[in-house]
Amino acid sequence: MNKEKLTIIKVGGKIVEEEATLYRLLDDFAAIDGHKLLVHGGGRSATKLASELGIESRMVNGRRITDAETLRVVTMVYAGLVNKNLVAGLQARQVNALGLTGADMDVIRSHRRPIKEGIDYGFVGDVERVNVGLLGDLIDKDTVPVLAPLTHDGNGHLLNTNADTIAGEVAKALAARFEVTLVYCFEKRGVLRKENDDDSVIPRITSDEFRQYVADGIVQGGMIPKLQNAFEALTAGVHEVIITQASAIHAPEEGTRILR
Amino acid sequence: MNKEKLTIIKVGGKIVEEEATLYRLLDDFAAIDGHKLLVHGGGRSATKLASELGIESRMVNGRRITDAETLRVVTMVYAGLVNKNLVAGLQARQVNALGLTGADMDVIRSHRRPIKEGIDYGFVGDVERVNVGLLGDLIDKDTVPVLAPLTHDGNGHLLNTNADTIAGEVAKALAARFEVTLVYCFEKRGVLRKENDDDSVIPRITSDEFRQYVADGIVQGGMIPKLQNAFEALTAGVHEVIITQASAIHAPEEGTRILR
Repeated sequence: MNKEKLTIIKVGGKIVEEEATLYRLLDDFAAIDGHKLLVHGGGRSATKLASELGIESRMVNGRRITDAETLRVVTMVYAGLVNKNLVAGLQARQVNALGLTGADMDVIRSHRRPIKEGIDYGFVGDVERVNVGLLGDLIDKDTVPVLAPLTHDGNGHLLNTNADTIAGEVAKALAARFEVTLVYCFEKRGVLRKENDDDSVIPRITSDEFRQYVADGIVQGGMIPKLQNAFEALTAGVHEVIITQASAIHAPEEGTRILR
Repeated sequence: MNKEKLTIIKVGGKIVEEEATLYRLLDDFAAIDGHKLLVHGGGRSATKLASELGIESRMVNGRRITDAETLRVVTMVYAGLVNKNLVAGLQARQVNALGLTGADMDVIRSHRRPIKEGIDYGFVGDVERVNVGLLGDLIDKDTVPVLAPLTHDGNGHLLNTNADTIAGEVAKALAARFEVTLVYCFEKRGVLRKENDDDSVIPRITSDEFRQYVADGIVQGGMIPKLQNAFEALTAGVHEVIITQASAIHAPEEGTRILR
């Protein structure tokens, strides 16, 4: 039996926090045919709210150190402000969106990240398992899950969890049931051959090419873990992974396609 | 065919905002047999966050005037902080909680309250309809909806909506499918004959008695609309309505039972 197609889109905070880009994203996402799922960030709004409340935002390796006060902030911003505005905006576009954290219906269970190399990330979760049955049933009924980057440990604690990781883990888990295309939205048009040349998008990258690009210094910084996650997703059964701009989610052929 | 039983509990902000009372509520709610649904408030936390952000809270007739900034605050507090902590706490107690606003899966549609007698409540919603099919299907599968006091207008706007009203409207709508007991939690043990005497709980009130109590000045203030809502719910098919303390939701015979 052929699996039905499912498109999973991950968008970062920047896109969903400005009205103009948010409305465009909502229109473009609503226009995607077939089953779909949205994973969002919200880091900029969290940093802004924390600052207004006099709470310092501390980042290590691009990850937020999440003490109890910061957990309150990200819970309010991710699960409340950002998630529910996305849901209401999609409902207005006839998309039957359902906003979820990992705690809701126990869809994503995680454990608190252990202290490593002296770094205590606080209330940050590493994903343990995704409830494929429940998520899959919702998607089969044309519900569109909108996932906030929060999970839970099953003992009553919410845990701040990287949105890229959630998108990857959900894509891998749902690959058992759907033909999954995973689209990571990015500020640039895709993986660029030359950092400041938007026309230098690399249209396809295999894992051999990836190793060569890293060795040559063409791919560097935050793009390395992004691509590693992408290859891991493909190995785990995800049909295809695309890195592109949010404004191109309806035309992903413009971005970079990651190949096994 | 006999309808299955459904218990709908409405708790105010005070209960869910202090750890000791929150944990007790979670334990008591988890212990309720059969299908159940929780509706919560969060006004105190919203007022506190608004104040920390330098936003003035204005109340008219006990209802919050909700301008755009205040809507952001209540969205963060109700749908994020309060709702997701309740969900995570219930999951830790083996209750398959699912946090929802009215926008999620379009479960509660409302319209913005028109300006009346010169009062513009801002982004405040009056409930239009409850999606009984979807809510009922979730409940049938032993999912436990946890409803935040926010609805949406279908045009992309979230609307702040009184939690008592949501509980009443949801109870009335679900009465078509379940034998609904609606429990309003209150600071006192029930409706009191003497305001400051906790032992003066009136165990049962019919609508005739209600009119007499109001005429005699025994029932007054905020209790009048609470009881009016209760009688309205009974008329619309709700099986029973109870007004009691949050600490007595597992033993509702201690509170006041409202009778047709």
